[in-house]
Amino acid sequence: MKVVIDAMGGDYGPEVTVKGALDAVNSLDIEIVLTGVETIINEQLNKYNKVKGIEVVHCSEVIENNDKPSVALRKKKDSSMSVAFRMVKEGEADAVISAGNTGALLAGGLFIIGRIKGISRPALAVPFPTPRGVSLLIDAGANADCKPQHLLDFARMGKSYMQTMQNIEEPIICLVNVGIEEEKGNELSKESYTLLKNANIGFSGNIEARDIPEGVADVVVCDGFTGNIILKLYEGVAQTFSSALKKELMRTATSKFGALLVKPGLKSFKKQFDYAEHGGVPFLGVNGLVIKAHGSSNAVAISNAVKQAKRCHDNQLVDHIIKNLTFVENPHGEVSL
Amino acid sequence: MKVVIDAMGGDYGPEVTVKGALDAVNSLDIEIVLTGVETIINEQLNKYNKVKGIEVVHCSEVIENNDKPSVALRKKKDSSMSVAFRMVKEGEADAVISAGNTGALLAGGLFIIGRIKGISRPALAVPFPTPRGVSLLIDAGANADCKPQHLLDFARMGKSYMQTMQNIEEPIICLVNVGIEEEKGNELSKESYTLLKNANIGFSGNIEARDIPEGVADVVVCDGFTGNIILKLYEGVAQTFSSALKKELMRTATSKFGALLVKPGLKSFKKQFDYAEHGGVPFLGVNGLVIKAHGSSNAVAISNAVKQAKRCHDNQLVDHIIKNLTFVENPHGEVSL
Repeated sequence: MKVVIDAMGGDYGPEVTVKGALDAVNSLDIEIVLTGVETIINEQLNKYNKVKGIEVVHCSEVIENNDKPSVALRKKKDSSMSVAFRMVKEGEADAVISAGNTGALLAGGLFIIGRIKGISRPALAVPFPTPRGVSLLIDAGANADCKPQHLLDFARMGKSYMQTMQNIEEPIICLVNVGIEEEKGNELSKESYTLLKNANIGFSGNIEARDIPEGVADVVVCDGFTGNIILKLYEGVAQTFSSALKKELMRTATSKFGALLVKPGLKSFKKQFDYAEHGGVPFLGVNGLVIKAHGSSNAVAISNAVKQAKRCHDNQLVDHIIKNLTFVENPHGEVSL
Repeated sequence: MKVVIDAMGGDYGPEVTVKGALDAVNSLDIEIVLTGVETIINEQLNKYNKVKGIEVVHCSEVIENNDKPSVALRKKKDSSMSVAFRMVKEGEADAVISAGNTGALLAGGLFIIGRIKGISRPALAVPFPTPRGVSLLIDAGANADCKPQHLLDFARMGKSYMQTMQNIEEPIICLVNVGIEEEKGNELSKESYTLLKNANIGFSGNIEARDIPEGVADVVVCDGFTGNIILKLYEGVAQTFSSALKKELMRTATSKFGALLVKPGLKSFKKQFDYAEHGGVPFLGVNGLVIKAHGSSNAVAISNAVKQAKRCHDNQLVDHIIKNLTFVENPHGEVSL
């Protein structure tokens, strides 16, 4: 398998992308291509002794965080991101990873690689840890405004993900809503409920936000605005709780001593809910493997994103999505997609 | 001050509403009216020795949780909820509290008491604890589908709340969005941003969900669908974290001993984030004081809701909202509302 990494992307650029790539190439049976400014990448590569399995493709341009995504990709044809996406489009690589501008990444997936036929809108799919295992939040932020058909597509792709990546044959698919009753919610959720119910995908009904962290649903379906709120609030509550807890535990000598004793437990607790541990986030619905790494990724996160890319590739995630779509649309085998 | 409580509302009905009312009337300088089936209420009241300051108004009907709110209030004119709302409308009571069906409560506020002139849509305003104090989430679930004008009204009412109830003269007012930049978000948030920016209310821009728990904004403005997701996810994450933490702390003998030592800290930590401690939630924009108690309220929660009603009344919250509106619309004093 060959993975192409946009080496210029992310808050920390080549310093972490190069280190992450090296860690990955040393522990996995893969090849890696780094796209970006050759001199800068080589400067980083020269820090290490043995460099095997890494190829550098020089690009003269970089997409900046304040560039308008669609414009940037069209205009900066020789940017590290554009070149990386083109390599996947042209079959020269099996997956692309970037920690760069999310909007540009989505635009690259859509306009360079292209959608899977039958998918109205690709979506960011974020696996997150729960006490019961792993659930998938889809769409976690690619599409701020959605129509019911988009949510149906998210549900289908989420189902494929849980089947291939988590081996759950019949995942519990729920729609995020303000109540569990069918008639609850806003216009979008009410119409989406009807569509999902009639789509023969094994829809399990609405889920209230309070039941999401417990892992009640395997696939948590929502529009990208709501998904982004869920993802970031989860992160924010975890952060605030963890700081407040630390403060409380440091308040007295007794509690400080107690805190020492519970430290391993606290660490394991923290790790359990750290979704960054799970590496990159796939952008589903694109006709190729696109993995988004967090903007503030360190080398470990980049290396985890490569692992995630390999798992998606080994499990033939994209093919499975395509196959499932055909089956849903044509239970009798006629291909009309 | 006279508070009317819908004694039949909530999951536990008269058993907790009566006890909560008694606790409140014994600790505050108020009178309480209980509306509901007289025999049932009296049966509860007879459990206690000294009952002073409580009046019972008999009603022959009860609004059930599966009643359609607007229909229920129109048809069940002698329900405990309808009668309670009419008492506020007709000036016989200063505030109404109900732990009953939220939709019916909203309908009662709108159709029996009526809106404040100049407010397009009343909203549920939930104060929640943060490390910096208290923030207000508005709308927390009254309006699933919103227009930008509604969000502007929520912002104005939220500002009034923080000024009168928390003594913050210039509260930080933020719009919940998927990014802090003006151009980010869905159609609603983009249009609302422009409206809020031009409204001269001291708008501070967008807030991402990850910064809400830390208390970065005093007034957190969003549509009721998003607000409900935020409120319930907050609750869910707290619940899941607390269970997982407990499990980790009970894993070994050492950690169990440590857990004993940190117990007071954990308790204080838990209390800090329990928004139920803050009692009832005001329904702002109605021309009278309407407080919603949680459906699963116990007697303490009902008593806290009465305290919250008294605080709102003492601080003249409703008058302040009306005054602020007039000022905003007419900085030169002409009344055109």
